[in-house]
Amino acid sequence: MDLTEQLNHIFYPKGVAVVGASLNPEKVGYMFMANILDGGFSGKVYPVNPALTEAFGLRAFPSLRAIPGEVDLAIIVVPAEAAIAAVADCAAKGVKGAILVTSGFKELGTAAGLELQQRLSDIAHRNGLQLIGPNTLGLVNPGNNLNATFQSALGSVKCGNVAVAAQSGGMCHFIIQALSNHNVGISKAIGLGNRGGLDFDGVLAYFAEDEETTAITLYIEGLEQPRRLMDVARKVVKRKPVLVLKSGRTEQSSRATLSHTGALAGRDEFYRAAFRQCGIMAVDTTTELVDKVKALAMQAPAAGDRVAIISGMGGPGIVITDRCSQLGLKLAQFSPATWQRLRKVVSPLNSVDNPVDISWGLGDYEASCEIIRATMEDGGVDGVTASLDSSTISLPFTRAVTEIAPGYHKPMTVSLGPEGSSAIVQQHLFEEKSIPTYPVPERAVTGLASLVQYGAIRRRFC
Amino acid sequence: MDLTEQLNHIFYPKGVAVVGASLNPEKVGYMFMANILDGGFSGKVYPVNPALTEAFGLRAFPSLRAIPGEVDLAIIVVPAEAAIAAVADCAAKGVKGAILVTSGFKELGTAAGLELQQRLSDIAHRNGLQLIGPNTLGLVNPGNNLNATFQSALGSVKCGNVAVAAQSGGMCHFIIQALSNHNVGISKAIGLGNRGGLDFDGVLAYFAEDEETTAITLYIEGLEQPRRLMDVARKVVKRKPVLVLKSGRTEQSSRATLSHTGALAGRDEFYRAAFRQCGIMAVDTTTELVDKVKALAMQAPAAGDRVAIISGMGGPGIVITDRCSQLGLKLAQFSPATWQRLRKVVSPLNSVDNPVDISWGLGDYEASCEIIRATMEDGGVDGVTASLDSSTISLPFTRAVTEIAPGYHKPMTVSLGPEGSSAIVQQHLFEEKSIPTYPVPERAVTGLASLVQYGAIRRRFC
Repeated sequence: MDLTEQLNHIFYPKGVAVVGASLNPEKVGYMFMANILDGGFSGKVYPVNPALTEAFGLRAFPSLRAIPGEVDLAIIVVPAEAAIAAVADCAAKGVKGAILVTSGFKELGTAAGLELQQRLSDIAHRNGLQLIGPNTLGLVNPGNNLNATFQSALGSVKCGNVAVAAQSGGMCHFIIQALSNHNVGISKAIGLGNRGGLDFDGVLAYFAEDEETTAITLYIEGLEQPRRLMDVARKVVKRKPVLVLKSGRTEQSSRATLSHTGALAGRDEFYRAAFRQCGIMAVDTTTELVDKVKALAMQAPAAGDRVAIISGMGGPGIVITDRCSQLGLKLAQFSPATWQRLRKVVSPLNSVDNPVDISWGLGDYEASCEIIRATMEDGGVDGVTASLDSSTISLPFTRAVTEIAPGYHKPMTVSLGPEGSSAIVQQHLFEEKSIPTYPVPERAVTGLASLVQYGAIRRRFC
Repeated sequence: MDLTEQLNHIFYPKGVAVVGASLNPEKVGYMFMANILDGGFSGKVYPVNPALTEAFGLRAFPSLRAIPGEVDLAIIVVPAEAAIAAVADCAAKGVKGAILVTSGFKELGTAAGLELQQRLSDIAHRNGLQLIGPNTLGLVNPGNNLNATFQSALGSVKCGNVAVAAQSGGMCHFIIQALSNHNVGISKAIGLGNRGGLDFDGVLAYFAEDEETTAITLYIEGLEQPRRLMDVARKVVKRKPVLVLKSGRTEQSSRATLSHTGALAGRDEFYRAAFRQCGIMAVDTTTELVDKVKALAMQAPAAGDRVAIISGMGGPGIVITDRCSQLGLKLAQFSPATWQRLRKVVSPLNSVDNPVDISWGLGDYEASCEIIRATMEDGGVDGVTASLDSSTISLPFTRAVTEIAPGYHKPMTVSLGPEGSSAIVQQHLFEEKSIPTYPVPERAVTGLASLVQYGAIRRRFC
């Protein structure tokens, strides 16, 4: 069975067993049972615990082997000392994948912890069992109503086309929630923990094949063999953007990653160069991650780096111009024809050089349409960012953008700042047409920059 | 009359005249009248327009001179060609300050525009009239219920202790709204436009004396004589932090500032060095501005750069560590006593090295209290940042922090991410005790870093 097929069994299991299922709501074995059942998962669910005959209205089994049906996915929450037996049971039962949630292995930093993890890995490897973890969160497949994690909130994440793989369960949860809160849906997400079996290269290859996934996000603390990931990434980036948030980037934090998921973080410059070489887009913060993934999930990459700025106010237009320069974007030079078209419809009080300042004409639908048409039709424009705010936001302009912009197949991002302004209706109208919105102008530029960046990566690798 | 006294008359006017008051809701002369009256301003308001005998239920006057009472502040919205006469009228009437809203002066980039502005400046200067603008938004003084701008939304901004002066009306509005949306109140705000009279150095000196103001924010596009600002700033930063967002920082955007407020933006490196020299804190984005001002408005500066991180999850703790290093903060090294105290109350599953990972103990009030006490009492800790999120947020921990942390007089910031999570109750509880909250961990570090940065500035200048 190849990896894709095996991971398909794991993300779309017919049967799931929870080894260490519990009736105590404070126990992880309870949380997994509750989250799987609450999510409306339609496959079979088998609680495994020799002390129980029934749990959550289901028949409980004393062991994995006692389960009559097929088990594609086993979730193991028993203590570390019982993990070897549990993984061996999985192998004997012909389970496709085992999520080992328990910690107490390589991340301890002891020889015993390392050895125990190595034994687990060997058993899994010899038997063709895909080991996920140890020391992990689990996985989520919203399209299959499967929340196989101990976080109940992950049962209600938005379904979409971004895949997430993270070394840390906390960051996996954090990234999923952050994307969901920004109206970006998840195709699949998985915590890899100590990576005793499944590693980033494997899951990346799977996400590349997964039809539900169009953009891929990785949170990495450290890799022993970065080249394996790079070799896979080089192929994947031709079809789908791959973003990485790499932590443990300094001496201070590198110490922390070791005790967290047993990873040696390594030198930041090395990783930076490696990611650049293979077309992976590295980001610095969770906010940058969200802003870039949002644009990449909603829009096609840009054909070049020349952008037009449409601003509902003069000052913010200048702030956006600064931001464009910082992120390596060029201000488009409008053709004389474009300039004349804009001059006809924009108030004489406003500049129509790039940035186009539309503060005194936002309420006019026809003018708004012509502004969008003129900028989008200019051959020297590769993408557009528009900045509105609480005082300049207008339904006619929104209507014009949402009706006209998508037809040009040039990327566009919109900001509805300042942050915290309630522009839910506008956000909905734009994003319904796959035009991503942002809470401040600078972040809308970040989004646009990621589309320019990915366009360049595609041209380089294809 | 010295500048402080004069600006006091302008921000707390007994009488305000709107020269060019209008009954047409699309005219700026209407907007000013409506916003001043809607705000509940308790002084006298005089509409001035020879075509009206009454406006908004008030007696209208044909000219400024016809007004019987004293006029401290005149707002001039007549066309550029009538501005000279209007400013001369202000001088004759003994008005203290005139806000010239009209554009069509230096920002045109023509000799005529420049000359017209110079004549206005001369009249004002000769007569001791404080000219604000031209090409400006107006001013806001929430504590005095005065919204003397054409933006109605500025009538409902939160009253607080941050003063704002901006070259661009749009950015003035944007910054005020952004702060307000983040629960940071405004003491006073003013748009300076083309700075034909009042300039940054003057308004900064005034904010330094203003008792309502504890932190000062400037948005600058370009200065002809930066040294004047620097000389004032050097004194002000001993008592109050001064933050600057400087735009027009690249060749691309510098062209835009010229046509926007007639300012030559100048070289970014020069400004950076100048700001550093005089203790002004420069920021790169509107988000960074908000994050830093928020911390500085709520907390005292730090005594050093060694921070403790308390994290509700392991992964985010590492991301925070990276961010601290990026921003020049050091991870505090806990004393053995602190380490032992933490080890006693933190779950054995979690690390108590810095970062302190409290994912398995957040629900315990006593343990939370001891964690706060132990970190705050460690002599090697200058400030604390705590990161919670939707799954780890807990009332017992919040209660412990809000009860205990303020007593130690060491700065603390909290993140309640991921962004977009609804943590309004928690935000309120923390900020009621002046502990600023942020939507993502990285931004809580930005806040803490600004307190460390300002602490160092104070030690350097005092």
